[in-house]
Amino acid sequence: MDSEHGEVAASIRELGRRAREASKLLAAADSNAKNAALLAIADALQDGRAALQSENSLDMQAGHERNLDAALLDRLELSEARIDGMASGLRQVAALPDPVGEITDMRYRPSGLQVGKMRVPLGVIGIIYESRPNVTADAAAICLKSGNASILRGGSEAVRSNIAIARCIAEGLQHADLPAAAVSVVGTTDRAAVGALIQMTDYVDVIVPRGGKGLIQRISADARVPVIKHLDGICHTYIDDEADIEKAIAVAFNAKTYRYGICGAMETLLVAQSIAADVLPRLGEMLIGQGVELRACDRTRSLVPQAIAATEQDWATEYLAPVLSIRVVDDIDAAMQHIGQYGSGHTDAIITENLSRARRFMREVDSSSVMVNAASCFADGFEYGLGAEIGISTDRLHVRGPVGVEGLTSQKYVVIGDGTTR
Amino acid sequence: MDSEHGEVAASIRELGRRAREASKLLAAADSNAKNAALLAIADALQDGRAALQSENSLDMQAGHERNLDAALLDRLELSEARIDGMASGLRQVAALPDPVGEITDMRYRPSGLQVGKMRVPLGVIGIIYESRPNVTADAAAICLKSGNASILRGGSEAVRSNIAIARCIAEGLQHADLPAAAVSVVGTTDRAAVGALIQMTDYVDVIVPRGGKGLIQRISADARVPVIKHLDGICHTYIDDEADIEKAIAVAFNAKTYRYGICGAMETLLVAQSIAADVLPRLGEMLIGQGVELRACDRTRSLVPQAIAATEQDWATEYLAPVLSIRVVDDIDAAMQHIGQYGSGHTDAIITENLSRARRFMREVDSSSVMVNAASCFADGFEYGLGAEIGISTDRLHVRGPVGVEGLTSQKYVVIGDGTTR
Repeated sequence: MDSEHGEVAASIRELGRRAREASKLLAAADSNAKNAALLAIADALQDGRAALQSENSLDMQAGHERNLDAALLDRLELSEARIDGMASGLRQVAALPDPVGEITDMRYRPSGLQVGKMRVPLGVIGIIYESRPNVTADAAAICLKSGNASILRGGSEAVRSNIAIARCIAEGLQHADLPAAAVSVVGTTDRAAVGALIQMTDYVDVIVPRGGKGLIQRISADARVPVIKHLDGICHTYIDDEADIEKAIAVAFNAKTYRYGICGAMETLLVAQSIAADVLPRLGEMLIGQGVELRACDRTRSLVPQAIAATEQDWATEYLAPVLSIRVVDDIDAAMQHIGQYGSGHTDAIITENLSRARRFMREVDSSSVMVNAASCFADGFEYGLGAEIGISTDRLHVRGPVGVEGLTSQKYVVIGDGTTR
Repeated sequence: MDSEHGEVAASIRELGRRAREASKLLAAADSNAKNAALLAIADALQDGRAALQSENSLDMQAGHERNLDAALLDRLELSEARIDGMASGLRQVAALPDPVGEITDMRYRPSGLQVGKMRVPLGVIGIIYESRPNVTADAAAICLKSGNASILRGGSEAVRSNIAIARCIAEGLQHADLPAAAVSVVGTTDRAAVGALIQMTDYVDVIVPRGGKGLIQRISADARVPVIKHLDGICHTYIDDEADIEKAIAVAFNAKTYRYGICGAMETLLVAQSIAADVLPRLGEMLIGQGVELRACDRTRSLVPQAIAATEQDWATEYLAPVLSIRVVDDIDAAMQHIGQYGSGHTDAIITENLSRARRFMREVDSSSVMVNAASCFADGFEYGLGAEIGISTDRLHVRGPVGVEGLTSQKYVVIGDGTTR
């Protein structure tokens, strides 16, 4: 067992070594080569549809035999639409501007030097994800576009599908004369592979885990490589007493009901007490009509009798379900106090027509996205114009909020003189 | 011993808890309050000169008794000039634009939302440094300006001086009605304090170690909190065969001799073989005349007979001394190959009049600063216009190169709608 694990670790280190080599070529690769590879991968996925689906059906069959639950089996399936979705995602990423090499802030200094910054890839990115095989193509695309080599480790239940997708990726890379090790898909389902991947600081520059909170916490606890992580999305909407009532009701209803399972879904509604009687009865009725369970404070329950009593635990819960906690608060200070105490720093919104309060909320609420008069379910990379998204960071260092191609780069300094000395 | 360490750890955790609380107020503090504090600290340092020097003389005396070496004693001393230097550093930081709250890239999206980014502090910053007490004031200033609370842990040999500076800082914070815990100076010399500081991920967002490579490696190995680190500065200058010879000689001479002990000092000179005979005899003579020891490859030694033979170890050494390794290389590819193999990713320069080669070098050399026709000793935050510097990052994530106030911030998203729903 130990020597088996040793072998797995050695093979992951070898992947890492080759990824590091490939990352140097990729950092210097021109935009055309990267885009040609992305388009060729898209073609290979669609042309290879039959092979993909046949491998995927073996994963599905194994999943059925292991009694995986229906939601997991659904995520595992590579339907026609999902294959087309992967291909179109790749083409969208190809169409994005190349972030690598962008020079900004170039200014003359008193020394006569011009000093500016150039955007460069991070190097090698390790992505660890669960059952969805389409993440393999999405993650490869965003890493490739940003000039990073990637090592992709998907869920064991999707391993045949992932290997089939990897073949299409390899074909696309070859078509564009990019090194095969620019994208590595870990073919083993041995868990020791993850342990090795998150420890090799010499070959991997950052780990992006995608999946449930348990996976992300485990990886963050054990990793020696820096992790860009996404924990909870306990998102709040605060309806200020100077809110426009129609906007407030529309936004809050949408923030909860647009999709229950996304991290930007509103989980707690806070309402200023002096406007609560105008908002909560109507909004409560709409939400209940939609099948949303309401868990609320006493002041709310006096206005919405169908709501059950919220417990302390409710304020700290990301439901990802048709459940909403509601609290009436005295004012914006009480609302920001509640968000600071129970929030997860993901996305929080204020509904108000009052400019000073909007400014305060934006400045003082310490979340990766702060919104004014908008539904928190907008919190994603596509809506923000990033064109692609590898995840949403709830960390503070490097990148916060939706992470697109730019989030997988950093900036070095470029300094130009003319024989300049000190 | 164990319970003593337990007590130290508990007191550091308590510092952390209070720093976290203070960081929330500081993040929302307006520019005037932060600047008033910085100016008041500067005044307090100069007004309290006598008290500072009397505490410092106790540190100096203890240092003499412990037989600290002369260089260390020199760094420890708070001369009149150093106290004025701290005060003027604080006033310079006060004069910098406030990075916090800056909104950029605000654009309308098809949804009707405006989406942009707001610059925000990282939170709580732990600084661990060695003997120089002036770092206490410099680090406090840069953290305060960037809206971060800081926990400062200086060398044990400077503890009395650091506590005296801390009193001036506390006075300045009080003057501006900012919380005392905005800047904490660790008063214990117990090493367990460092261990506690670098482990408490709940209270500290980033650690910046300042000191020798040994200190930084130790901290990086043990830390659970992310570290912005600065390891070696093995800086190269490559003189291309299309270099202007006068510029090449002036820049290379300056890059080595401006100051031997700084991290941006050139440690290895690479010269294209077809220009070597025009450059190396003259440059070699100038360097030898300046007292620089030359360690070189055979091709160099045929042109500069006084040079001794370089060993493999020389290419990988940061001398920080009047020693230079020199190698004649075939061309720019061989130069970049050498830099990739032996460099430390700090600062590397090309001397050339050829635009295509300059472009290639800037794009392909993976260092925190890449320079064209400029001396590598320019690599510092003041020369780059940052106005202050907490260190130079040789990491890839978050920030590369000189780290100023902006390097201690990140960006959150701000999203403004008008009742906008999906």
